[in-house]
Amino acid sequence: MEKVRLGIIGFGQQGGNYTRFITEGKVKNMVIGAFCDIDPAKKEYCAENYPDVPFFDNYIEMLESGKVDAIVTTVPHYLHPEIGIEALKRNIHTLVEKPAGVYTKQVKELNDFAATKPDVTFAVFFNQRTNPLYQKVKELIDNGEIGSIRRTNWMITTWWRPQGYYDMGAWRATWGGEGGGVLVNQAPHQIDLLQWICGMPKKVYSNLKYGYQRNIPVEDEVTAILDYGNGATGVFITCTHDVLGTDRFEILGDKGKIIVDNSRKITIKRLFLSEPEMSATLGWGDIGKLTRGEGPSKIYSEEVIEFQSVWGQQHINILENFAANILDGTELVAPGSDGIHGVALANAIHLSSWLGKEVELPLDEDFFLAELNKKIEEEKGVTVQN
Amino acid sequence: MEKVRLGIIGFGQQGGNYTRFITEGKVKNMVIGAFCDIDPAKKEYCAENYPDVPFFDNYIEMLESGKVDAIVTTVPHYLHPEIGIEALKRNIHTLVEKPAGVYTKQVKELNDFAATKPDVTFAVFFNQRTNPLYQKVKELIDNGEIGSIRRTNWMITTWWRPQGYYDMGAWRATWGGEGGGVLVNQAPHQIDLLQWICGMPKKVYSNLKYGYQRNIPVEDEVTAILDYGNGATGVFITCTHDVLGTDRFEILGDKGKIIVDNSRKITIKRLFLSEPEMSATLGWGDIGKLTRGEGPSKIYSEEVIEFQSVWGQQHINILENFAANILDGTELVAPGSDGIHGVALANAIHLSSWLGKEVELPLDEDFFLAELNKKIEEEKGVTVQN
Repeated sequence: MEKVRLGIIGFGQQGGNYTRFITEGKVKNMVIGAFCDIDPAKKEYCAENYPDVPFFDNYIEMLESGKVDAIVTTVPHYLHPEIGIEALKRNIHTLVEKPAGVYTKQVKELNDFAATKPDVTFAVFFNQRTNPLYQKVKELIDNGEIGSIRRTNWMITTWWRPQGYYDMGAWRATWGGEGGGVLVNQAPHQIDLLQWICGMPKKVYSNLKYGYQRNIPVEDEVTAILDYGNGATGVFITCTHDVLGTDRFEILGDKGKIIVDNSRKITIKRLFLSEPEMSATLGWGDIGKLTRGEGPSKIYSEEVIEFQSVWGQQHINILENFAANILDGTELVAPGSDGIHGVALANAIHLSSWLGKEVELPLDEDFFLAELNKKIEEEKGVTVQN
Repeated sequence: MEKVRLGIIGFGQQGGNYTRFITEGKVKNMVIGAFCDIDPAKKEYCAENYPDVPFFDNYIEMLESGKVDAIVTTVPHYLHPEIGIEALKRNIHTLVEKPAGVYTKQVKELNDFAATKPDVTFAVFFNQRTNPLYQKVKELIDNGEIGSIRRTNWMITTWWRPQGYYDMGAWRATWGGEGGGVLVNQAPHQIDLLQWICGMPKKVYSNLKYGYQRNIPVEDEVTAILDYGNGATGVFITCTHDVLGTDRFEILGDKGKIIVDNSRKITIKRLFLSEPEMSATLGWGDIGKLTRGEGPSKIYSEEVIEFQSVWGQQHINILENFAANILDGTELVAPGSDGIHGVALANAIHLSSWLGKEVELPLDEDFFLAELNKKIEEEKGVTVQN
C-alpha cells in the first residue's frame, strides 16, 4: 500500500471538511476511497463534486467493496462503536470520531474487539492532542517540571451555541440523539486533554443544569469537582451559553504552576525550592518580606510561551498520523483504546448529577446505561422545540 | 463625644496594628481608651510603650471602667460573640473582628442581642469591603451592568502559610482553637465579599482536604460548588499551600462578564446585545464569522480599571467608618449583623464535607454545632505537632 484509501462514513460537516483536506492534497499518503451516507441529497452532492469516488448508502457494503483500506466514522456518537467493530472485523483500519461512544459499555466492547486485531490500526479523533500547546503542557507534566499535581482547574466556556444551532436538527442535544449536551458534543476534547495530561480522577461530583439557557433537555452548564484519590483535586467547568467564553486551564504542582490562557499562551512558574521545602524552612515573616520585595527578589522563574492557532491543521495531523501508523507503524497520537477515558469521565459527571452525589470511577457500566435509558424514555414524553 | 475612645480587647498582631494606626493619628476621631489582654507580657509591653493608656486583664472590668466608648475584639474567633454581647449590654459600641464567630448559633445570639440595642453601633471588621476595587465590582453588579448572574468563580489561593506559621501557637488551625482552617482564619474576607457582591447561595457542596499539605487537623484545601437556586452556580477555591497563589474572580451575567485579577484589575466586558437576545437572533454561522473577524468587529465593549493596593488603609477605613457611625450616624460599610452570612457559608462548606453531600442553607444550627463539637472531641485524641 502506497497511499491509504479512506472511506468517509457520514458526509456531514466534518466528513465534508476531511474530504476537502484530503482532495486538496493536504493529507500526506491519504486519498478518498469512497463515501457513505444514507441521505440521497449527499449522494447527489458527491456525484456532482466527486464523480470518480464510489458512493455507498450502506456502510457494510462499503467495508466489503475493496475500495477502502480505512474508514473514519463521522456519524452520530452512538454509532461509533458499532461501525468501528464492523470495520475492524473486516480488517479495515478504523478512526472513530470523538467521543468514541456515548457510554462506556459500548466503548469497552469496541476496545475489547480491537484488542483482538492488533495488526489493524485503531485510532480516535482527538485532534487537539496534536495541538503543540497541549503537547507542551503534557511534556511539562510528564517531565515533572512542576512536580506532583495538587490541583487542576479548567474553565472552558468558549463553546457558545445559540438556540438556532440546536434547532437545526431534532437529534441535536437530546438524550436519544446524542446522549447528552455539552459534555458529549463540545467538551470531549478538553475532557480528553485533561485526563491525558493530568490523569483520571477516582471520584467525581457534579452540578449540571439541564436546559438552563437553551431549550434543550440535556445539560448546557457543567460544574464538576474531580478527586484524584491522592489528595489532589480538580474543577472542570463548561457551558454553551457564554458568548464571552473563558478558556483558562491551571495546574498546580508542588514545584510550580502552569496556566494556559485561551489555548494560546502557556505561563510556567517554576519554584526554585519545592513548596514542601519552602514550607519546612521558611517562616511566615520571611515570606512577608518576600512579598513586600524586601527579600530575595524571586522565589520562582517564569516562562511564557505563545502559540499560533491554525484551524484545520489539527485534523490534518490526526489523518496523517493515522495513515502513517497504517503505512509504517508510526506511533499513534490518540490510540483508539484511549477513547474510553473521556467517555468514562463524562459518564461519571452525568451520573453524579443524576444521583445528586459523588460517584466513584470506574462506574458500574450497566447501571449507567440503565440510567441513560431512563432519560431517553422520559424525553419521549417531552416536547422539544424544533 | 468628640472622639471615640476605643478599647482594644486582645493585644496580638491585629490589636497592635490598630493601636499603631490610632496612636499615629491615622484614624480620624478615634483615640485609644484602654487595652485588655490576659498575657502579662502584653501588659508589660503596653506599660512601657503606652504608659498613659489604662490596661485591664479582665474585659468586663474594662467595659465598666468608663474609659472606653467602644471596643474591637481582636481575640480568638470563638470569643467574638460573647464579648460582643457583654459590650453591647453595657452600651459600648462594638466592632467584632472577622469572622463574627465560628458557628451561626452563637452569631445569631449576638445579632439578636444587638437588635435590642439599635442605638449602639455594631459593626464587623470586613476591611476588604472598603477596597475601592470590590466596591466598584459591587456597584457594577448592583447596577445590573452585566445583568443577571449566571456563574461566580473565585479561586483565591494567595493565603500561603508555611508549617512554621501553624507551629507558632497550639490553638492555631485546630477545631477547638479556631473552629477550622483556611475557611475560618484566612478566607472569611473573600467569603464575605462573594456573598456581599453576588448574594448567598441556597445549596453548597464541598470537597475539603484536612491536613493535606500541612500538619494540621483542619482544612488547608477547599473546593466548593455554590448553587444559587435559580440556575446560577458558583465555585469557590482556597488553600494555604500555594506559594504561587492565584487570585481570580469571574462573574458571568447575561449582559456581560467581570474578571478581577489579583484584586488589582477589573476587566468588564459589556455585551451590546444581551446573551438571550444574541441566542435568539444570531445563527451559529453568524458567530463563526464574528469570531473569524468577518462580521461586525465587536459584540462587546471592554473596560479595564486598575487599582493600587495600600496595605493598612482598609483597616483604617473600617475604624474611621465605625467612629463616624458612632459620632454622626454615617452608614456602616459592614453592619455587625452582616457577619452571619460569611459564617453561615463557611459552616455550610464544612458541613457538606463532613456529611459528603450537598447541604441546604440555612443550616440546622444545632446540628452543625453538634458536628463541630464531635470534631473538637476527636481532635483531643490527636497529637498535633507543635
